[in-house]
Amino acid sequence: MKAELIAVGTEILTGQIVNTNAQYLSEKMAEIGVDVYFQTAVGDNEDRLKTVIDQASKRSDLVILCGGLGPTEDDLTKQTLATYLGRDLVFDTGAEEKLSAFFETRPQYARTPNNERQAQIIEGSIPITNITGLAVGGLVSVDGVTYVVLPGPPSELKPMVQESLVPLLSKSGERLYSRVLRFFGIGESQLVTVLADLIAQQTDPTLAPYAKTGEVTLRLSTKAPNQAVADAKLDALEQQILRTDGLDGVPLQTSLYGYGEDNSLSQVTVELLKDKHQSLTAAESLTAGLFQSRIADVAGASQVFQGGFVTYSLEQKAAMLGISEEDLHTHGVVSDFTARAMAEAAREKVGSDLAVSLTGVAGPDDLEGQPVGTVFIALASSKGTEVRKVHIGGRSRSDIRQIAVLHALNLVRQTLLT
Amino acid sequence: MKAELIAVGTEILTGQIVNTNAQYLSEKMAEIGVDVYFQTAVGDNEDRLKTVIDQASKRSDLVILCGGLGPTEDDLTKQTLATYLGRDLVFDTGAEEKLSAFFETRPQYARTPNNERQAQIIEGSIPITNITGLAVGGLVSVDGVTYVVLPGPPSELKPMVQESLVPLLSKSGERLYSRVLRFFGIGESQLVTVLADLIAQQTDPTLAPYAKTGEVTLRLSTKAPNQAVADAKLDALEQQILRTDGLDGVPLQTSLYGYGEDNSLSQVTVELLKDKHQSLTAAESLTAGLFQSRIADVAGASQVFQGGFVTYSLEQKAAMLGISEEDLHTHGVVSDFTARAMAEAAREKVGSDLAVSLTGVAGPDDLEGQPVGTVFIALASSKGTEVRKVHIGGRSRSDIRQIAVLHALNLVRQTLLT
Repeated sequence: MKAELIAVGTEILTGQIVNTNAQYLSEKMAEIGVDVYFQTAVGDNEDRLKTVIDQASKRSDLVILCGGLGPTEDDLTKQTLATYLGRDLVFDTGAEEKLSAFFETRPQYARTPNNERQAQIIEGSIPITNITGLAVGGLVSVDGVTYVVLPGPPSELKPMVQESLVPLLSKSGERLYSRVLRFFGIGESQLVTVLADLIAQQTDPTLAPYAKTGEVTLRLSTKAPNQAVADAKLDALEQQILRTDGLDGVPLQTSLYGYGEDNSLSQVTVELLKDKHQSLTAAESLTAGLFQSRIADVAGASQVFQGGFVTYSLEQKAAMLGISEEDLHTHGVVSDFTARAMAEAAREKVGSDLAVSLTGVAGPDDLEGQPVGTVFIALASSKGTEVRKVHIGGRSRSDIRQIAVLHALNLVRQTLLT
Repeated sequence: MKAELIAVGTEILTGQIVNTNAQYLSEKMAEIGVDVYFQTAVGDNEDRLKTVIDQASKRSDLVILCGGLGPTEDDLTKQTLATYLGRDLVFDTGAEEKLSAFFETRPQYARTPNNERQAQIIEGSIPITNITGLAVGGLVSVDGVTYVVLPGPPSELKPMVQESLVPLLSKSGERLYSRVLRFFGIGESQLVTVLADLIAQQTDPTLAPYAKTGEVTLRLSTKAPNQAVADAKLDALEQQILRTDGLDGVPLQTSLYGYGEDNSLSQVTVELLKDKHQSLTAAESLTAGLFQSRIADVAGASQVFQGGFVTYSLEQKAAMLGISEEDLHTHGVVSDFTARAMAEAAREKVGSDLAVSLTGVAGPDDLEGQPVGTVFIALASSKGTEVRKVHIGGRSRSDIRQIAVLHALNLVRQTLLT
């Protein structure tokens, strides 16, 4: 099946946003064995969109359009495609009910004719439910070409692709199975160096590294008739990888923190806290609530987290946590002493099993003679307090704070696993 | 001038990478007043690339190709374009010297015919020097269409665009000037409804709305010979917009919180706190530190923020803030009473001028009979405590928390402006 993607939206053509949907859709199509041969982006212009649709219908079997399903005048994807196909737009009952429910709880928002269009589909379409938004998508086949219409926002498009489109399009027989290994504490270039031979000689499964802020993932992929056959092949490669030593002589197994595309250090850590019935609190300086916010991102966090402190200034470290101001001045806020005192005080005040503290130099300026990126992280427990000093170099203020949070989550994770 | 971009590379079509060059090139073209009407991505396939080039040459004046200039078998952009235009590939002296120098220092690398191609340009081209890599780019005009060829890696493409392509293409005189108006508290569809006439009749300047999570921006753009002329035109349109009433009869001016592409509610709020020498603390329930983390995102936040509380559970609201547990149970944590009590207690404990609290239902389940998205936000000051109840409907847990933070920032902002 030859597929092509059409992203609709002037904001793409003016360079205001990056077209990430094209990458996501291509990846998902590849997983089910559908080849994407062309990706196009076009603005909110009926004539140009029609040109692109026409060209696509001549050279591809599957045409996926995304964007332009919203409630403004610029949103014209559905009606342009409908006009091109010579069909009407009709209301989808489920989408219409959702639209009504949305406006019922918002008396201050007006329900305009533009909004109505979000609940319409091209006549003859299979509706594709929008789980996180209002605009319903659809799939319709006309003259041997299948057209799919999806909304632009990735937070809406992704669940629709995952839950509806992929099942609709998947062929029985071989498909692509992937396994994602997630690593923290090793950089992408180091990973690629120690796995150079495996990467160079890869045939089946394939392996591809991807770097994110502060972490690296390895995607292993193989085509197989079913999960069991796929797992056998993936297991073999995974074992080879995890037995490989890093440049420090420690096996990569040590840096592996979890599996899965949508996983994260916060998810893994909260799951471990839940499994081991351990509660957690925190006292944060440079991260200012980001660590606790990430804990609360995870469903069920309330089982392990009741609250904590943001002690951004020296004075509030003293006032909220009862640490002597004189000691703070003597040792400095960026110190082993202060991280330790913060964690132990927080643990005592909240009465939790574990307590994390973060104190350091986010930048852009040095602090107390300590360079930007110096962070002390402590974890207090009934067994005592461990302090780690990390240096996060060559990064923006925002990245330093994010990576400091990852180090803290990893410290909790490793402690729970020992 | 009508431009179109062609990104060449199978890794784009398999979804392995995101096509960020398209966004970068579009942005740079917009800055010099060149409109990009189509963006296409195609794989390392000579036939399909030729099809795309042919189509582009018919509908565009400027065709920019990037990718496929490297030394491997898959790299075929230059030769495909050369074949299409009926021209030879010839060596560019500067590039050839650079290639020779590269291999002189690397006796272990073989200099293959594939490598040679990196130093070649289409006959009649103006070479575009590659500052950070080996593959030379080029610009050539044939039959009224200008073709530009650039390498794929952004680290090579960007300097070439900045240093060579933009000067080559800029007309002396006019360029595009933009102004971004940022709104909170009005949805994109409402904004577009009340500005329908202005949007429909727009000529110069143009105006385009863009929705982000919880906020809307309006980009006004005009071509002008200098900033002063641009400002005069932009000012006139801006005034028209801000005088327009929302559907609630309140002028849009009221929902305007700031200007600029890279601005944010947190930035604007912290700047106001600094200007008015007001300090701030917070007690957060559902947002769990996200509000305070956003305050600390802004440079200089330490001048106005010393720290605060994350009171995620009912028990910690009582323990950390001294609120009676019985009262919390009686009124519920999702209530006017609790929001008020949290803000007032936090203000007293930290001794700040202002204190914000957030308590509500992030989801996915209802809480205390209150639907998902119900959030109470309070702001305590020397003048008393204001409480706002907001309903953030039809959103994910993560979005509800983010938008609750925006509401809280806006409450602080509006209070500081009265």
